[in-house]
Amino acid sequence: MKRILIVGTGLIGASIGLALKSSGFDGLILGWDANPDELAVAKQLNAIDKSLANREAVLAAQADITILATPVLPIMDWMQQLSAALDDRHLVTDVGSTKREISQLATKLFHQPGRARFLPGHPMAGKESGGAALADAHLFQGATWLFTPIDSTASAIETEWRSLVAGFRASIREIDAARHDEVCAWVSHLPQMLSTALAALLEDQFANDPAGMAAVRAIGGRALRETTRLGASPYSMWRDVALTNTESIAATLLALEQRLQHLRENLRTPELREEFTTANRFRTSRFGARTDEGRR
Amino acid sequence: MKRILIVGTGLIGASIGLALKSSGFDGLILGWDANPDELAVAKQLNAIDKSLANREAVLAAQADITILATPVLPIMDWMQQLSAALDDRHLVTDVGSTKREISQLATKLFHQPGRARFLPGHPMAGKESGGAALADAHLFQGATWLFTPIDSTASAIETEWRSLVAGFRASIREIDAARHDEVCAWVSHLPQMLSTALAALLEDQFANDPAGMAAVRAIGGRALRETTRLGASPYSMWRDVALTNTESIAATLLALEQRLQHLRENLRTPELREEFTTANRFRTSRFGARTDEGRR
Repeated sequence: MKRILIVGTGLIGASIGLALKSSGFDGLILGWDANPDELAVAKQLNAIDKSLANREAVLAAQADITILATPVLPIMDWMQQLSAALDDRHLVTDVGSTKREISQLATKLFHQPGRARFLPGHPMAGKESGGAALADAHLFQGATWLFTPIDSTASAIETEWRSLVAGFRASIREIDAARHDEVCAWVSHLPQMLSTALAALLEDQFANDPAGMAAVRAIGGRALRETTRLGASPYSMWRDVALTNTESIAATLLALEQRLQHLRENLRTPELREEFTTANRFRTSRFGARTDEGRR
Repeated sequence: MKRILIVGTGLIGASIGLALKSSGFDGLILGWDANPDELAVAKQLNAIDKSLANREAVLAAQADITILATPVLPIMDWMQQLSAALDDRHLVTDVGSTKREISQLATKLFHQPGRARFLPGHPMAGKESGGAALADAHLFQGATWLFTPIDSTASAIETEWRSLVAGFRASIREIDAARHDEVCAWVSHLPQMLSTALAALLEDQFANDPAGMAAVRAIGGRALRETTRLGASPYSMWRDVALTNTESIAATLLALEQRLQHLRENLRTPELREEFTTANRFRTSRFGARTDEGRR
């Protein structure tokens, strides 16, 4: 019987616990969270079988697979501590949003003689609000689960973790860690920063104008809801993304600022047509299969 | 028996025809479109009862209510022509995305002794793709339908049009035309320009990098889908919005550019927390009731 330890029983951690049970895993699932309330909710939802009492218990647990499901900086803290506590029978994996710094640290701390293995991972699933209470056994169904492996050989326990993830009906894909962070800056971090900036701008613009804010609420439709939805995302997670992928995010933000300026300077010129045509092409040729039709 | 003429039988015009029938209107619905294919589809869908043959037939139709459902510039062309062709028994209304220039023109051309009345309108409904083929009898259900009336007294025919719109189960709201354009710049035009800019940027960034574009498609999830969805919107409609609300749109774009720059310069400072907190407040206090939970 295998033992799995989930460190960080928020939305993703608790959903992994539920997905493991729902896909037939019959080992023991241990859990720990820095926030006792999150840990209690995860236990109550049966996402974990047993709550660990403290950080010492996490280091002493010796689980076959330890899943780090916290923000990126605490993941790197736990990596430091766990690399000394585990040995080559063990696997540590993570679900952090950035992979370059984690993979560099994993190369240094794990994958040494006698040390545990580390498989950096990133499920492309989530919600704009976090917390164990929103956990969902089917969160990963149909989602892409990325791995940025440290080396090309997989240990037995690593193969087992991959097959458990496949059992969540996630689609596994491998990618180079640096490339991961570059692509994620475009498809995830930039949309997040954009949504945060737009929501914050609207709040400042209308906070002292109740009639204007009422009109914004009445008139704003799907366009506004979708472009500001990620404005609800928590700083606690995104701070670490910004700290560990600063250069890529800054580059995408600068490119978007320049593109918006170009569009602003061409609101009355034929160049506007070019912008719409290029954007149309992205949606139809590139992203077309996933277009979700509906009201705006 | 009343006669209604729909000029422009694309998505909105054809949906109005279907909504009229679905809510029990038993008069005759005439239709015309500059594109014979759109007109044929609207007729085939039974959104209109009778297709007019040409522009002359539109001017000769003498319908009780004429609905202008084209982009803004053709709406203003039709206003010029119809004001001379109709008299004070008639109502002309529109569904244009901007209201300041249309209302100014309506004051000049209509609402004079012996002239028809004009009620500027704007249903806050649509889809990112246009065309009669996507028409939907329930498109306006639950949506806000804005009017920016020229004067405070409503004629009998105007009252009748308002009650037909209420029959679509749309929620009617009145707003000053200039305020309309200012608020719409924030809640509709800015999200549109943003989505166009982001989709165009991604297209240019990855068009010559097939592996990168494949990764974008594989990794990009709900965040990318939602923030680029409006990138599919047609230039033909948005050109006129940009031309008739240039100053307001430029002001919102500049404000967003500055906000993104501020965020970019603070990716590693505590100021990032302020931005997330302010954005969180917009989503929870202001826009909270409409938050749609789900996967990203």
